[in-house]
Amino acid sequence: MLTRPEIERVVAAALAEDAPWGDVTAEAFVPAAAQARAELVAREAGTFSGGDVFAAAFALTDAAIAVTVHVADGDTFAAGDVLATVTGPARGVLTAERIGLNFVQRMSGIATLTSRYVAAVAGTGARIADTRKTTPGLRAIERHAVRCGGGHNHRHSLSDAVMVKDNHLAVLTTAGTSITDALRSGMQSVPHTMRVEVEVDRLEQIPAVLAAGVDIIMLDNFALDDLRTGVALIAGRAVVEASGGVSLETVGAIAATGVDVVSVGALTHSARAIDLGLDIRVDAAPEAGAS
Amino acid sequence: MLTRPEIERVVAAALAEDAPWGDVTAEAFVPAAAQARAELVAREAGTFSGGDVFAAAFALTDAAIAVTVHVADGDTFAAGDVLATVTGPARGVLTAERIGLNFVQRMSGIATLTSRYVAAVAGTGARIADTRKTTPGLRAIERHAVRCGGGHNHRHSLSDAVMVKDNHLAVLTTAGTSITDALRSGMQSVPHTMRVEVEVDRLEQIPAVLAAGVDIIMLDNFALDDLRTGVALIAGRAVVEASGGVSLETVGAIAATGVDVVSVGALTHSARAIDLGLDIRVDAAPEAGAS
Amino acid sequence: MLTRPEIERVVAAALAEDAPWGDVTAEAFVPAAAQARAELVAREAGTFSGGDVFAAAFALTDAAIAVTVHVADGDTFAAGDVLATVTGPARGVLTAERIGLNFVQRMSGIATLTSRYVAAVAGTGARIADTRKTTPGLRAIERHAVRCGGGHNHRHSLSDAVMVKDNHLAVLTTAGTSITDALRSGMQSVPHTMRVEVEVDRLEQIPAVLAAGVDIIMLDNFALDDLRTGVALIAGRAVVEASGGVSLETVGAIAATGVDVVSVGALTHSARAIDLGLDIRVDAAPEAGAS
Amino acid sequence: MLTRPEIERVVAAALAEDAPWGDVTAEAFVPAAAQARAELVAREAGTFSGGDVFAAAFALTDAAIAVTVHVADGDTFAAGDVLATVTGPARGVLTAERIGLNFVQRMSGIATLTSRYVAAVAGTGARIADTRKTTPGLRAIERHAVRCGGGHNHRHSLSDAVMVKDNHLAVLTTAGTSITDALRSGMQSVPHTMRVEVEVDRLEQIPAVLAAGVDIIMLDNFALDDLRTGVALIAGRAVVEASGGVSLETVGAIAATGVDVVSVGALTHSARAIDLGLDIRVDAAPEAGAS
Amino acid sequence: MLTRPEIERVVAAALAEDAPWGDVTAEAFVPAAAQARAELVAREAGTFSGGDVFAAAFALTDAAIAVTVHVADGDTFAAGDVLATVTGPARGVLTAERIGLNFVQRMSGIATLTSRYVAAVAGTGARIADTRKTTPGLRAIERHAVRCGGGHNHRHSLSDAVMVKDNHLAVLTTAGTSITDALRSGMQSVPHTMRVEVEVDRLEQIPAVLAAGVDIIMLDNFALDDLRTGVALIAGRAVVEASGGVSLETVGAIAATGVDVVSVGALTHSARAIDLGLDIRVDAAPEAGAS
Amino acid sequence: MLTRPEIERVVAAALAEDAPWGDVTAEAFVPAAAQARAELVAREAGTFSGGDVFAAAFALTDAAIAVTVHVADGDTFAAGDVLATVTGPARGVLTAERIGLNFVQRMSGIATLTSRYVAAVAGTGARIADTRKTTPGLRAIERHAVRCGGGHNHRHSLSDAVMVKDNHLAVLTTAGTSITDALRSGMQSVPHTMRVEVEVDRLEQIPAVLAAGVDIIMLDNFALDDLRTGVALIAGRAVVEASGGVSLETVGAIAATGVDVVSVGALTHSARAIDLGLDIRVDAAPEAGAS
Repeated sequence: MLTRPEIERVVAAALAEDAPWGDVTAEAFVPAAAQARAELVAREAGTFSGGDVFAAAFALTDAAIAVTVHVADGDTFAAGDVLATVTGPARGVLTAERIGLNFVQRMSGIATLTSRYVAAVAGTGARIADTRKTTPGLRAIERHAVRCGGGHNHRHSLSDAVMVKDNHLAVLTTAGTSITDALRSGMQSVPHTMRVEVEVDRLEQIPAVLAAGVDIIMLDNFALDDLRTGVALIAGRAVVEASGGVSLETVGAIAATGVDVVSVGALTHSARAIDLGLDIRVDAAPEAGAS
Repeated sequence: MLTRPEIERVVAAALAEDAPWGDVTAEAFVPAAAQARAELVAREAGTFSGGDVFAAAFALTDAAIAVTVHVADGDTFAAGDVLATVTGPARGVLTAERIGLNFVQRMSGIATLTSRYVAAVAGTGARIADTRKTTPGLRAIERHAVRCGGGHNHRHSLSDAVMVKDNHLAVLTTAGTSITDALRSGMQSVPHTMRVEVEVDRLEQIPAVLAAGVDIIMLDNFALDDLRTGVALIAGRAVVEASGGVSLETVGAIAATGVDVVSVGALTHSARAIDLGLDIRVDAAPEAGAS
Repeated sequence: MLTRPEIERVVAAALAEDAPWGDVTAEAFVPAAAQARAELVAREAGTFSGGDVFAAAFALTDAAIAVTVHVADGDTFAAGDVLATVTGPARGVLTAERIGLNFVQRMSGIATLTSRYVAAVAGTGARIADTRKTTPGLRAIERHAVRCGGGHNHRHSLSDAVMVKDNHLAVLTTAGTSITDALRSGMQSVPHTMRVEVEVDRLEQIPAVLAAGVDIIMLDNFALDDLRTGVALIAGRAVVEASGGVSLETVGAIAATGVDVVSVGALTHSARAIDLGLDIRVDAAPEAGAS
Repeated sequence: MLTRPEIERVVAAALAEDAPWGDVTAEAFVPAAAQARAELVAREAGTFSGGDVFAAAFALTDAAIAVTVHVADGDTFAAGDVLATVTGPARGVLTAERIGLNFVQRMSGIATLTSRYVAAVAGTGARIADTRKTTPGLRAIERHAVRCGGGHNHRHSLSDAVMVKDNHLAVLTTAGTSITDALRSGMQSVPHTMRVEVEVDRLEQIPAVLAAGVDIIMLDNFALDDLRTGVALIAGRAVVEASGGVSLETVGAIAATGVDVVSVGALTHSARAIDLGLDIRVDAAPEAGAS
Repeated sequence: MLTRPEIERVVAAALAEDAPWGDVTAEAFVPAAAQARAELVAREAGTFSGGDVFAAAFALTDAAIAVTVHVADGDTFAAGDVLATVTGPARGVLTAERIGLNFVQRMSGIATLTSRYVAAVAGTGARIADTRKTTPGLRAIERHAVRCGGGHNHRHSLSDAVMVKDNHLAVLTTAGTSITDALRSGMQSVPHTMRVEVEVDRLEQIPAVLAAGVDIIMLDNFALDDLRTGVALIAGRAVVEASGGVSLETVGAIAATGVDVVSVGALTHSARAIDLGLDIRVDAAPEAGAS
Repeated sequence: MLTRPEIERVVAAALAEDAPWGDVTAEAFVPAAAQARAELVAREAGTFSGGDVFAAAFALTDAAIAVTVHVADGDTFAAGDVLATVTGPARGVLTAERIGLNFVQRMSGIATLTSRYVAAVAGTGARIADTRKTTPGLRAIERHAVRCGGGHNHRHSLSDAVMVKDNHLAVLTTAGTSITDALRSGMQSVPHTMRVEVEVDRLEQIPAVLAAGVDIIMLDNFALDDLRTGVALIAGRAVVEASGGVSLETVGAIAATGVDVVSVGALTHSARAIDLGLDIRVDAAPEAGAS
């Protein structure tokens, strides 16, 4: 659930960037009294995300514009479906058009791509998770889109979960401390509500990490055989996350190795925007008064 | 030239998103006294952009971190080149690493891709321009990156230049007015410092648009032959911009038709991040005091 | 068209400045239950601007206040006309009164003064334009007011159009480069959607500037005869803008020299606030309960 | 004393308005390596105000620019005096020039005008005070300028002092309550650190107001004779403030009536900007590298 | 009267802190369609404050939540009273519950404690005032709560009233100046709308301070006998404020010494939150659709 | 580690609240040229926290003030210790004094109280954790102070960990679902990096909760005997957290029951500010020039 202030924040920032002091084209070429009616139409099938954000783009531009969204976030749609209707002063509709479309296309693109990854691992018991590789400033709405597509969120930021990587391990073991002792030592100060994840890049690191009692082990860029061996080694004593080299082609086989989670940066950094169009019909105002 | 407040705004927003209340991993697993020295190293060749933004990512996280950037924005670099050096408290270096890298990789990616498009049209007299298809919130820094790569900026927003599209023309001609008269009418209220651009999607529209005395005509999704015909028709009476279906493969032929500008959405919406790495060496502090 | 976020930004800033922690007089001397009805009345004739801003001043102070604006931005009004009606809790009406009046008086003052300049050049073909000499923080609403008065906007900021002044020319020609070559060189990197304006202060500079192919030449502080000579020299090859020494007394003669644009700093830096009054009738609440 | 955050707030807002995404003219026509040296020179005599704000305009644009201010706020200066020196990258100096000048001209204009009013009442014992008629968003710096000129501040806002006007009195006396009782009643809830001021517009109102024990009585738009009568009536039992119809010509006579304070809206709403110039010398960089 | 922007500012800040990217528990464990009805119930008697702030907590989280507040700020209530009703989507109600409760409990706690101090001095003529010892960021709403409890506000900040303390006096008298002369000198530049308060910590300081003509004398940490002596010494020539060592047990005796004001830091820094509960009844949606 | 933007945010907000347009007392009664030297001195023993925040209070007020902090966050100190030294213009030192002290007293108070709780459970193996009962707007700095005292953080917000309470369970089991099934169902959508905590208020609820495989069980307001029984029942299959009725007197016995975590709201909502004083010595400037 996106909070209202977060939705307004991202939309207001986009509007301030794209129309900082209005829309000169609309003001010069569209009469003030002209009214528009527009439909958000799917040009291809997909999974919907971003209805509230789409609506806010128009409402923040001009409070006289009304938006009705006909589908819920997470619903699937077919090519040709009318997803939302926009009515109100034509100038504001034209000004907000691109901003509204950008958000809903990007979010629905993420939801749709996520749903394909989810479908590709159906039956394996593995979940699809996102990563921190989101667009700067849009993390909350992109993670929401991942959830709309049936995916799961990974940690949101450096503040809310622990992920120990090679650089951290290098420091921890500088003075000759073993990895196990080093991890145990650091884990003393981690909040008890957080899980501790450690990234490993070869099988030999697993026993020492496991001995420290960590919650999640990320197997980074492992071959399929090594993933299977890793799952067997860990044997349920930690959540197993696979990462690296994941595509729609490979994700099924990766999930079939028995890992619990497959994290996929592509969900957010490579999702193609879904092709949605805004079909606008502008009526010159009956009273014809351009101002 | 990016202004200092704009640089600080984008970096602070990214930091607030990625470490809203600190970095639990660094705090738990890295001693407070540990110092780090890191080098920004190119893993592949490219054109540099974002030095100030990279430096600000570390400085805003911890003012005790010093960053020296060894290349200027717009310089080219080779794989293996050391582009910047970062020294200071290890915790802050690790916290800011991803944010700093993200910006400089994205910006250098845009600069590099732009430079390839620029090279592909060398000798034709056409310039490469960006579009409004930038990442929400990052328009100013992405447009800066385009300039670093030798490209030119198109309009920044709806507020600073006029672009008349089909929807606008539809309104203008509702009451039976001719396109020429309609354009002339709207142009009366456009600031004299702005140029007026009109988008056309077929050759037949050009004479009426030209008759109105517009400054720029965008030929949208024209075949090469039609581009050549369009250029001949316009005959220097307006700037000719080609748009749509532009790739590194096609841009040379498009530019060779004689158009003045080729606008390329891909510069910003499809640039691949350049592979830059931050090689970090963390020293446990001599006094070994973890806090 | 002012965007809603911009209107709310300027009004909220004014309110935060003028009533940072409420209105002690209203709270101490006006019962909480008292209701007020107020009318915005013109004390003199003029051109209206700022209806939405006036309404927002009351709505942001107390959402229970209703405002109906009876005229559109750009309409003319006569002394005695009732321009808007405000009804709601008396405390909030009294708190917001000065802020609401300030904006609408200032904006209508600019619109009215602009309309006088526009009338003074009627029939000459010249347009009246504003300058960057606006009140810090209020540029968007003051430029809107200029448009309400029938004037045109000049560039909004340093970011959206090129204006080459003497300091720039001094740099350009330091190394012995001619003005023409220097201008041509710089113009290579200007976005194709922007016009290039050059300011000259004597007739001799015109041929070199014209040879560079600039779009607009500003004749700064020229005598009437020199303006006429300048217009003849330029002969339609660039837009001609006159600037400096412009007043309601002189603008007609300046426009009659054949220049295309007369830019007038006075529109925004010297417009007298229009005399509008808010006639308030406060009713003690029937239940007479002061809280 | 202006606080540092307030100075940075007003300057950053002005910069965001005047160069939201940089300065296209400087970037296109001034080499990145060019250095400038500029002097802030007085074109006329006056009283200085705004040194810190002037310096911040350049520092916020580019931290590499150094500003030295040679006079203190409140000092007087003569035509030709060099008030400050600016050195650093030419692009940033040119970008910030107008913003820096605007603030220091406006603030010094207010300080200078205030000092003339102060001189005009010398020897009378009356003080000159400002009003809330300040530029929206600039109240703190304009009130500072008034103090630099030897004037005094009135209340800052509706939140920090009580001023009972006719509309308030109308409510207070609706139910047949006497003015004295009504004022006494309201004064019960006024903080003991605040003074209570009541505005009257005719002599007959004074006894009732005085009987309530108010601290300050404002005689609004009184003739000189009535001012003298009012001062005699009040006889030291309240501070007497004269307001309305005050100009440099009339203020001496008004002060000579024996009033304690003369409040002058013109200090802030009608101060003419002092003529200060920024003489810039731009050096092409020795290495001549335009970027 | 709290202004609407101030209410929204504090609530939005609290929401951004407590649910920066939503409420994972509500999203995972509460169906999207579930509706809730909640009642704000008093678990103990008290004085109410914060109705608008409570309502805004829910409205800002989800605009579909409706809140009706049944009592006015300043009203008293008994244990068991239903103070407000909240209805709408269960997720948002649960997310906002703690923020809404926190504000109304804190504010009503301050109002209730204030009302006890006010009752304890009934009949003495002394007023109870707050201090600047408020929670950082919440000063405006905590001072509003003091007023709801029948207390009075002291100065809001360093900007709106003068309080001369020992450190200031130390500077003033460094060069051998007498306290009286020093105070008189400083008072020349204080705005005439502000009162001047001086803090003294022993009786001997009073005559010199009084001679300067200050408005308020604060007797800091005086014994009861000394307070009586101080009141007699001052004899109505200044407002007398007692401060220090004030508790519900001592305040009656302190007020009985004849002082005009007793300022009590405890009103805001030690008020216990009033025990208010939000009784929530969540209905699974009829259509039972968890999303 | 507090990030620099967070420190500046809280300090700037406090300064804007406490000196929105400067410090009238300092400006009227302290010469502009006066210099001060101040020492932060401990009046009682404690654990330090907030050095960076204390320094920022002065630096943001006037960049000419230098602050040296002599102890690190987390260090203990004795009564009489000099913790920091402040030097610079006296006006700014006096203006920032209260803000700087407030933060460091509050933070050191939390750190000191936390360290007492930590000492009281020494040897039991239980950790002391904070709660969300922090001061609105100050959560990040108060949680930092808890860590300085040797305590641990609980979840930061509703966004970063799951806590299922009675209201959530009520919804989950509405349709006759068992608690175990309901928890399992909801846990499907919780991010794998988060732990799931469930609050129970009687022993009978434990088996069903445990069966669902939750990570943490909070025993809320359990008697000591019941805590021991609960620990035995859970038998290491979940982290056990005790909450409710915790004081310095009871915490040792609670920890001795074998629970893993004792969460203590008092750490942040009831910590007494540590008594630290700022001993200021103000020197009138040699040149004695008050401005």
